[in-house]
Amino acid sequence: MKNCIIGQSGGPTAAINASLAGVIEAALQREDIGLVYGSLNGIEGVLKGRITPLNGLFEHQSQLDLLVQTPSSFLGACRYKLPEYQDDPAVYQQIFDFFNAHQIGFFFYIGGNDSMDTVDKLSRFAGQFHQEVRIIGVPKTIDNDLPCTDHTPGFGSAAKYIASTVKEIGRDSAVYDLDSVTIVEIMGRNAGWLTAASCLARTPQSPAPHLIYLPEVPFQTDLFLRQVKEKIAQFHNVMVCVSEGIRDSAGNYICEGASSGLSDIFGHKYLSGTAKVLENLVRDQIGCKARGVELNVSQRCASHFASLTDLQEAKSIGKEAVRCAAKGETGKMMAFCRQNDTPYRLTIEPAAISLAANQEKTVPPSWICCDGSDVTQEMYTYLLPLIQGELSFVMENGLPKHLVLPQA
Amino acid sequence: MKNCIIGQSGGPTAAINASLAGVIEAALQREDIGLVYGSLNGIEGVLKGRITPLNGLFEHQSQLDLLVQTPSSFLGACRYKLPEYQDDPAVYQQIFDFFNAHQIGFFFYIGGNDSMDTVDKLSRFAGQFHQEVRIIGVPKTIDNDLPCTDHTPGFGSAAKYIASTVKEIGRDSAVYDLDSVTIVEIMGRNAGWLTAASCLARTPQSPAPHLIYLPEVPFQTDLFLRQVKEKIAQFHNVMVCVSEGIRDSAGNYICEGASSGLSDIFGHKYLSGTAKVLENLVRDQIGCKARGVELNVSQRCASHFASLTDLQEAKSIGKEAVRCAAKGETGKMMAFCRQNDTPYRLTIEPAAISLAANQEKTVPPSWICCDGSDVTQEMYTYLLPLIQGELSFVMENGLPKHLVLPQA
Repeated sequence: MKNCIIGQSGGPTAAINASLAGVIEAALQREDIGLVYGSLNGIEGVLKGRITPLNGLFEHQSQLDLLVQTPSSFLGACRYKLPEYQDDPAVYQQIFDFFNAHQIGFFFYIGGNDSMDTVDKLSRFAGQFHQEVRIIGVPKTIDNDLPCTDHTPGFGSAAKYIASTVKEIGRDSAVYDLDSVTIVEIMGRNAGWLTAASCLARTPQSPAPHLIYLPEVPFQTDLFLRQVKEKIAQFHNVMVCVSEGIRDSAGNYICEGASSGLSDIFGHKYLSGTAKVLENLVRDQIGCKARGVELNVSQRCASHFASLTDLQEAKSIGKEAVRCAAKGETGKMMAFCRQNDTPYRLTIEPAAISLAANQEKTVPPSWICCDGSDVTQEMYTYLLPLIQGELSFVMENGLPKHLVLPQA
Repeated sequence: MKNCIIGQSGGPTAAINASLAGVIEAALQREDIGLVYGSLNGIEGVLKGRITPLNGLFEHQSQLDLLVQTPSSFLGACRYKLPEYQDDPAVYQQIFDFFNAHQIGFFFYIGGNDSMDTVDKLSRFAGQFHQEVRIIGVPKTIDNDLPCTDHTPGFGSAAKYIASTVKEIGRDSAVYDLDSVTIVEIMGRNAGWLTAASCLARTPQSPAPHLIYLPEVPFQTDLFLRQVKEKIAQFHNVMVCVSEGIRDSAGNYICEGASSGLSDIFGHKYLSGTAKVLENLVRDQIGCKARGVELNVSQRCASHFASLTDLQEAKSIGKEAVRCAAKGETGKMMAFCRQNDTPYRLTIEPAAISLAANQEKTVPPSWICCDGSDVTQEMYTYLLPLIQGELSFVMENGLPKHLVLPQA
């Protein structure tokens, strides 16, 4: 009988712990899996020998239910980039020595693009050097930019939060009898999925957001100002949703002037200030009231309005990862395959990790209106099932209760 | 039989329409009140002759229920400042001529400090010139800074949203194995009630936010840095909640350098950028990872996680306003009188508007810890009942449904 290790990595989401709960629940139920370890701070936990047994913590279903409703990574996360094997074989040796020392037969890694790169590298090493550890990636990212899967766990909850918040800001921005422009900046470096989700705020009585700009389309300042003016003439209070990562046709970030120049370990620039740049542009060039609103980290960690569909799917994909690994699969990322839009139906299948790692899935050009200021009906059809339903939370003093890993 | 006019004014809240629903429901039920008009954009609607009959719109209870769950001002708002009578008697004449022409016997004004000033001035005029219009203020402000009332409708929902969001950001900010400081900027120019509500995010397992700074206490940069360093040594990932309006001992806003210099019609400066200033300070002076998060307008308009207690109280105070006016009261602001903390009980009473208008109720010094970096147990006891319960929303496509005033 072999043991398993689970790690979480990358930015937080509202659903990453639901996937963890799925993996734990399924692993605890299997007779061919012994101890279930959590690796603290992703793969760094394995490298530093910081793992913790989870069996005792999750003897009761109520603890798994609390885990599902807790945002962010219960086990912590890392931004560690695993080197290529040829550049640093010792790291691989260290990881697999650790696996062998703890009789690890299964490694589940819940994460986004960068984490799938880790899964890819570790499973290639395991294959090449005949290591008997089955390595499975469980996708997670609010950005929805992983290939091979219809969507990613975490995206639906972020989309629901964004749509709800944009709908409320639409109410907020329309109360005064004057012309105004409210610009909401939404996460998304290269992929506009999250910003596109703002379209769900619209109703027949309320067309806000009036304009939606994604990073997939080069941003043209003149066109933007013209489109905003047209909407002001029609609606007075205009709402614009914009991805943090919009760039001009030369590839320069619109936010560049306002950004810090800092970047993370993967070389990703910290983007912010796009709404502020556009706010100033509107105030200077159009002269009306303008306000920029940055939705910030709540997009990824707001679990209090999570999509029940998302949480349930996130848990299911975690369970399926265990089932697949037990059947002998390795070097795979679990993926959602949508079977139907209405009624919504999907299956969960393993996809080759090499096809999923280090790729970004952006919004198809045909789902963006030709003038670049909106999304098409296909986007609504795609998004709508993902935000359905709400969780019945276990509450504590008026707030959803969270499960926090006891400090060692 | 007389008619009534209802207006809403000032910044949006999640509960201002619950108060409107209360006034409408009670007014529609009375045989001594005929038509129920809504004044569009506050008192400006009366001045511009823009009022709309509400009787037909709210024949069905389901419409009132939708109104309760809709954030921001259903009737729109204004920031119009009524001049003193001696400076511009014609405005008063115009308002009361309009009231008389429409046989208005009751004017209900739902708003914050500035709106209570309007109620005060109009009722003084009515008294002095024997106008038979009863004028009642219904309090509303997320800032909770109105005197004469235990708390204000709208505050409980904002507090619940802030506490929930801060709790989630606490999870979000603790995932990496490094020292970090997350600074959350919360609304509050002079009164720290909203920022204080962040204390509700704490649990025995999770002490974030570790530091809370209110505008009632002069902000000392050196002390702040020392307190942050102490918390880093103890907790590694430190969360700080801070009011947008914190000032140094000379009265200068900490955010001043980053702010626009713009101010509104009431002379209030637009404050923002406090978190950004402190983020840079921490990065420069302490050298660890730092992130500023501005909660922004969602604090006031996020209804999707409204406090049921707040919504119910907001509706009740609207109904009581009608009952009081029908009994002959005028020149009053309706107020909550807390009878008990545990179990929580309150009554609703009319307070003299002259005592409520143009006053700000700040956090009592005894509810702030002596080093200025936290609140005391009294604050918890005060806040906890206000955030209890959640509404069962009428949903539409996965989001709470809103009621929008049909365009004329």
